Amino acid sequence: MSTNTASSPPQRAAAVTVAVLGFPTDSNSSHLRGPAKAPARIRLAMNDDGSNSFAESELDLATPGVFEDLGDVALREDESDLETIEAAIEAQLALGRRVLSLGGDHSITYPVVRAYALRYPGLCVVHVDAHPDLYPEFGGNRYSHACPFARILEDAGVESLTQIGIRTMSSPQREMADRHGVRVFGPSQLQEACSRLPGGPVYLSVDLDGLDPAFAPGVSHREPGGLSVRDVLDVLAKIPGNVVGCDVVELNPERDIQDMTATVAAKLSKEFIARMHADARRNEEVSF
Amino acid sequence: MSTNTASSPPQRAAAVTVAVLGFPTDSNSSHLRGPAKAPARIRLAMNDDGSNSFAESELDLATPGVFEDLGDVALREDESDLETIEAAIEAQLALGRRVLSLGGDHSITYPVVRAYALRYPGLCVVHVDAHPDLYPEFGGNRYSHACPFARILEDAGVESLTQIGIRTMSSPQREMADRHGVRVFGPSQLQEACSRLPGGPVYLSVDLDGLDPAFAPGVSHREPGGLSVRDVLDVLAKIPGNVVGCDVVELNPERDIQDMTATVAAKLSKEFIARMHADARRNEEVSF
Amino acid sequence: MSTNTASSPPQRAAAVTVAVLGFPTDSNSSHLRGPAKAPARIRLAMNDDGSNSFAESELDLATPGVFEDLGDVALREDESDLETIEAAIEAQLALGRRVLSLGGDHSITYPVVRAYALRYPGLCVVHVDAHPDLYPEFGGNRYSHACPFARILEDAGVESLTQIGIRTMSSPQREMADRHGVRVFGPSQLQEACSRLPGGPVYLSVDLDGLDPAFAPGVSHREPGGLSVRDVLDVLAKIPGNVVGCDVVELNPERDIQDMTATVAAKLSKEFIARMHADARRNEEVSF
Amino acid sequence: MSTNTASSPPQRAAAVTVAVLGFPTDSNSSHLRGPAKAPARIRLAMNDDGSNSFAESELDLATPGVFEDLGDVALREDESDLETIEAAIEAQLALGRRVLSLGGDHSITYPVVRAYALRYPGLCVVHVDAHPDLYPEFGGNRYSHACPFARILEDAGVESLTQIGIRTMSSPQREMADRHGVRVFGPSQLQEACSRLPGGPVYLSVDLDGLDPAFAPGVSHREPGGLSVRDVLDVLAKIPGNVVGCDVVELNPERDIQDMTATVAAKLSKEFIARMHADARRNEEVSF
Amino acid sequence: MSTNTASSPPQRAAAVTVAVLGFPTDSNSSHLRGPAKAPARIRLAMNDDGSNSFAESELDLATPGVFEDLGDVALREDESDLETIEAAIEAQLALGRRVLSLGGDHSITYPVVRAYALRYPGLCVVHVDAHPDLYPEFGGNRYSHACPFARILEDAGVESLTQIGIRTMSSPQREMADRHGVRVFGPSQLQEACSRLPGGPVYLSVDLDGLDPAFAPGVSHREPGGLSVRDVLDVLAKIPGNVVGCDVVELNPERDIQDMTATVAAKLSKEFIARMHADARRNEEVSF
Amino acid sequence: MSTNTASSPPQRAAAVTVAVLGFPTDSNSSHLRGPAKAPARIRLAMNDDGSNSFAESELDLATPGVFEDLGDVALREDESDLETIEAAIEAQLALGRRVLSLGGDHSITYPVVRAYALRYPGLCVVHVDAHPDLYPEFGGNRYSHACPFARILEDAGVESLTQIGIRTMSSPQREMADRHGVRVFGPSQLQEACSRLPGGPVYLSVDLDGLDPAFAPGVSHREPGGLSVRDVLDVLAKIPGNVVGCDVVELNPERDIQDMTATVAAKLSKEFIARMHADARRNEEVSF
Repeated sequence: MSTNTASSPPQRAAAVTVAVLGFPTDSNSSHLRGPAKAPARIRLAMNDDGSNSFAESELDLATPGVFEDLGDVALREDESDLETIEAAIEAQLALGRRVLSLGGDHSITYPVVRAYALRYPGLCVVHVDAHPDLYPEFGGNRYSHACPFARILEDAGVESLTQIGIRTMSSPQREMADRHGVRVFGPSQLQEACSRLPGGPVYLSVDLDGLDPAFAPGVSHREPGGLSVRDVLDVLAKIPGNVVGCDVVELNPERDIQDMTATVAAKLSKEFIARMHADARRNEEVSF
Repeated sequence: MSTNTASSPPQRAAAVTVAVLGFPTDSNSSHLRGPAKAPARIRLAMNDDGSNSFAESELDLATPGVFEDLGDVALREDESDLETIEAAIEAQLALGRRVLSLGGDHSITYPVVRAYALRYPGLCVVHVDAHPDLYPEFGGNRYSHACPFARILEDAGVESLTQIGIRTMSSPQREMADRHGVRVFGPSQLQEACSRLPGGPVYLSVDLDGLDPAFAPGVSHREPGGLSVRDVLDVLAKIPGNVVGCDVVELNPERDIQDMTATVAAKLSKEFIARMHADARRNEEVSF
Repeated sequence: MSTNTASSPPQRAAAVTVAVLGFPTDSNSSHLRGPAKAPARIRLAMNDDGSNSFAESELDLATPGVFEDLGDVALREDESDLETIEAAIEAQLALGRRVLSLGGDHSITYPVVRAYALRYPGLCVVHVDAHPDLYPEFGGNRYSHACPFARILEDAGVESLTQIGIRTMSSPQREMADRHGVRVFGPSQLQEACSRLPGGPVYLSVDLDGLDPAFAPGVSHREPGGLSVRDVLDVLAKIPGNVVGCDVVELNPERDIQDMTATVAAKLSKEFIARMHADARRNEEVSF
Repeated sequence: MSTNTASSPPQRAAAVTVAVLGFPTDSNSSHLRGPAKAPARIRLAMNDDGSNSFAESELDLATPGVFEDLGDVALREDESDLETIEAAIEAQLALGRRVLSLGGDHSITYPVVRAYALRYPGLCVVHVDAHPDLYPEFGGNRYSHACPFARILEDAGVESLTQIGIRTMSSPQREMADRHGVRVFGPSQLQEACSRLPGGPVYLSVDLDGLDPAFAPGVSHREPGGLSVRDVLDVLAKIPGNVVGCDVVELNPERDIQDMTATVAAKLSKEFIARMHADARRNEEVSF
Repeated sequence: MSTNTASSPPQRAAAVTVAVLGFPTDSNSSHLRGPAKAPARIRLAMNDDGSNSFAESELDLATPGVFEDLGDVALREDESDLETIEAAIEAQLALGRRVLSLGGDHSITYPVVRAYALRYPGLCVVHVDAHPDLYPEFGGNRYSHACPFARILEDAGVESLTQIGIRTMSSPQREMADRHGVRVFGPSQLQEACSRLPGGPVYLSVDLDGLDPAFAPGVSHREPGGLSVRDVLDVLAKIPGNVVGCDVVELNPERDIQDMTATVAAKLSKEFIARMHADARRNEEVSF
Repeated sequence: MSTNTASSPPQRAAAVTVAVLGFPTDSNSSHLRGPAKAPARIRLAMNDDGSNSFAESELDLATPGVFEDLGDVALREDESDLETIEAAIEAQLALGRRVLSLGGDHSITYPVVRAYALRYPGLCVVHVDAHPDLYPEFGGNRYSHACPFARILEDAGVESLTQIGIRTMSSPQREMADRHGVRVFGPSQLQEACSRLPGGPVYLSVDLDGLDPAFAPGVSHREPGGLSVRDVLDVLAKIPGNVVGCDVVELNPERDIQDMTATVAAKLSKEFIARMHADARRNEEVSF
């Protein structure tokens, strides 16, 4: 698993199921900076010799055709990044690939999902987080990392939004959730949430602060009482639908303890790639 | 070099449901010092910009009338503190408030509960901890942090004591538990414990070492195999009774890792305030 | 500058149920060194004043006759260690004792189980780990810490092998598992695993990386999504059989955070001693 | 959830030599947030029981009249803060006090020194830092923490600027330094710097990253090769002039290790208070 | 759960120059507990494979006859410990050995030096510390770790006391120092201190908080602005006298970072042993 | 400052003064693994936004022509690496470049210096380290990281070897040093060492454990009493000769604290590049 930059998609592109793209940005973070440094750390953890290349499904991610890490997309830390991110995703989707996006803060999910929703009508979004990220605006910024799901609900054209692990719902976000019929589940409602996960094409967005800080201390907003790593993997396993895209966001290496959270992000990344690969293969079989 | 003191309760006192009082004491600790420094750390965590003011019930704790932090009660680290603590609690109860007490070590719970039991006949105590704290005396000290529940059982006049998370029951404590009919539940019995939580007026005391050290490393006595933060919140949620008082004790900032445990204490504090506020409101409605 | 050695078993040997032996070796580790330093750290944690001598069963481990720590077995970090370890175990078994072995890396379990299998026909092995450790060889080393259970299956003569917590099964290991009928359970199958634990004489081997890194960061191969300390204690509690031997391996003090993982190893050690003592006592009663 | 504010200076004000003011701001930081949390941490360290109240001069800081901590000045994190800070300093100077300012990031030093320069004609500024902070503007912000000394040179009307510990002089800053005749000393020139420290009224500004990260890891910009704590205290001791004001800035608690840097900030604060008190007393004697 | 004890000095005793004795006590500590755990940690660091057995003088400490570690002296944490410690030292001195004492807190130095002063008339004490430890009593305890040098001056009968690194001299201690003619040097006076070190028999006592916390964070009272490890070794090198005894005290493993301070204590221990061995050899040559 | 791999030297090669090459190897380490992960960490630190591109000489390293990072050289962790490393250096030297080599453990310095000595007759080696690394062989391995300077003395054909910071000279190494006339300076002899640094072409090898662990905790063998970062920069500044090559080795990220040592390695790297660039420019001027 090697690193490089996203400049030159290799020629064998079409043969790869999953593209990994890093989006090193944190200028839309409200509290601390740091997530821009996350993709590099996640890659180090993915390639660490203490780890290995097999997913829990026993798929070897090193198998040619499973995934390719295209490196980081160059961003400017201004509003033009919205378009840059959306375009980078579109380019991969156009090649028939699925994408694992590595944040960066949660602001990247809005342009990513916009691109996905265009390609996948009826897209259902599953969102693991401590916070609903449904603010109409935050600190005057409509594209703050506190707002992406408000934007998605308003104009991305998704079928449904299911939020899991939420434990800091504030009034303005509650209003937004109710207006758009968001299904919101706290950590104590995990079983119920798992039983109501959507079919159809599914986009899974995981903010690492959805996990309990015992598992993922390296986040800007630690909110105790969250999910375990296993809980998140169980959510993944119980999605009946076709997982077409994923992101892992909000790793803040500045607050991490001995790269523990980067290791969690790498683990989730590997399982997300394996699932997307399996769903793609299953889909192909169905198609033919 | 001074610290906040709780000397002058503001005039709008009666309008506030919950008072927060710090008790910075650790001279009754048997092993390590440190918990005297805890209230200041918990307050920093409660006010951290990475956090927010909404409880999981969606109550905004910043709403006027919910709670007021009265700072720390001045203590002398001698036996007179027992009376000082009891009096400080009584003063708040006399104003019609409920109190969240921030330790300090667990020795504070005896005088706190004494004050509560006088005002709330039939008081049931729910106690989350790794240790039963039921020693007749410890190292020659009857008011050691290893003894408060022995003292409470002997003379505070409470209705019942339910202990949850216990995993180090020694012979002298077992004898005390049996003599007084204490209901003791280990971490593997959590579900059963939750189904047998008391009604009536309830006082909830949480020693942070009841949690697993993965969630709460900043304690003097780390005992692996404990509860998660979510487990403790579930205990709170399943108390059928009227939660009239709470404490969070035994944070030892000297052993904390990046304030992780202070953040847990702050989270519990916020949820405890929200629950006491809700129970008080419900009670008022019932009364009228 | 010397270390304790296990050279001279005291004369009162026969009266003790459980012997504790340290095996300070890590030359068969594939990735990092460090586990050779583990036994000393686990002992410090077991003797820490913040802990106490009561197991969860309320057995006081300080009771004479429960256990004796015989210190570390001198090893050379070459292949002769296989015999040295096997002989050290045999010597204790010959005295009628059960043994808690403190690693060292997982390579010690092969010679330990060989000795056990000879003495206990029909021995069932329960193995908690993130990895199956079933490689035919690893990096050219048949006795690598990635291989002990391959060796055990091939020639130790055990009745069955049950693996719990596995989350990195690779192809060569899957083949080995299938060939020998290993029962493999991932962390999401914990309940099922617990319902299918073996009777008969049971050897329990716990690689600390079977735990989630949130609970046990001090391991060479952190694999998120693992068990909690409580999960492992529940596995122990649900073994219907007679637990005749145990090990706790793969603590890497070089990666530990504030001795958190050493404390977990000490906790498991205490519970394993208590269980072996109880099973021995029960067995004696049955025998007479 | 409130914080101390500096709104009401106590009536005995005139009798105190030194006022301590916190300026919790970091919105002008270019890289990471965090310094806004510093004043609270420095106060905790100053009041820690492991410390004591005697300065190295054997002055007891607890002596009435030495200093008073007025808490934090409420800031808005916008340009109005420049005036607020300047006014807060002016108010103390008008009372005949000297001020120790606790940052916050280095952007506070411009308004602080403006106030000082008006009251103390011929003010000489001594500045300990890894960086010259002389950018004409940084990232479009003329009041960035990378610019305060450019602003001071341009319009505060100070007599001289002496920079010590500088090890990252870039071209635009070199030009600014040369234009204004700044005396710049790297860490290897410490002895020479100490021999050329100014007389007259002196303002001392200490950015904690002037220290080597071994001594002060808790800063946003770690630049190895810096001063020791003793070096900074030696600089203080060798200032021949009358130290009328000081600041300690750029503590970033988010990056601190076990509050080590907060403890350094507290130590410096104590020595700065003692020096200002001694110089004030000496001055009074001279005056009469 | 037992610890090593120093009960049975081996028969080849006379042939060894230096005895190492641990004194695991911290009940006379004023602020935090922890130093009782230090000897075990220093031994682990001395025996760590990352270290080696050569002192800077190129003496191999593993050479037979250089030193022997006798383990810990059993203490009760009451006043009887004073006699126990003194007797343990006397017993070694009677065998013609020199002793390296591993604390525990600084309270051990009084009984240790009492034994030394009886055997070595004209004993000069060199004391490295942040604090003078000259309180007449502290918190009502005349044997507090804040008092040992007051006791030594009053009744141990030493020739002189030289204190190096002092940076928190309070009034009651200044009075004691002046009354007894103590030579006190702050960290900025290190060169002068080194030029005035005593001849004759010398006892060297090193409180690890004499070092800067950057080098030795694992102490109960961190006082920035202290010595480097090299500074302390230079003090040792510049003692013209005959170093007959040494101690290393006040390591608090509870506050250490990755055993960094235990490693410093081990390094000092090795150099102290080597120096005592060399001085003993030189003395023998002179004698014959 | 970007990362890539060493596969395709860009066409503008000749125009660049310094090449940076990573050698990710640690199989010749005697105690712990880890240094193979170092180059990636050093690059992250060099590119961190908290840092900047100016060296202390005020050279902007971002200036085209100063340096180019060619990424890591692929190694096999067997003896063939000796040739691979030597060839990789030779290739750069043949292009007229100077090389900064990033370890990896210290075993890389032997093949690196072999290549240098061929191209630069009369090469003088300056070596900063806690250990002389002069073992004839170590644990049976002649190419162990404990042996490179023995090999260099024997067959690389260098003019002289000057070792600085040495504090663990053992007998077999002393013999080697004496036989070859190595100039060995301990940390207390730093000034003398600096006054005797060689002219002529100089190769500078810095083992990070030459630094005190307070500055560089992230090494396999922590040896307190070492140099500061400034000391090493002063050594560099006082080399009268022409610095033609440098390495920074033995960073062990597994033992680092918050990347503190990686940041030190990055700082040294930047200063080494700047010095090599300046010496190359000076040399060119002399030539013309």
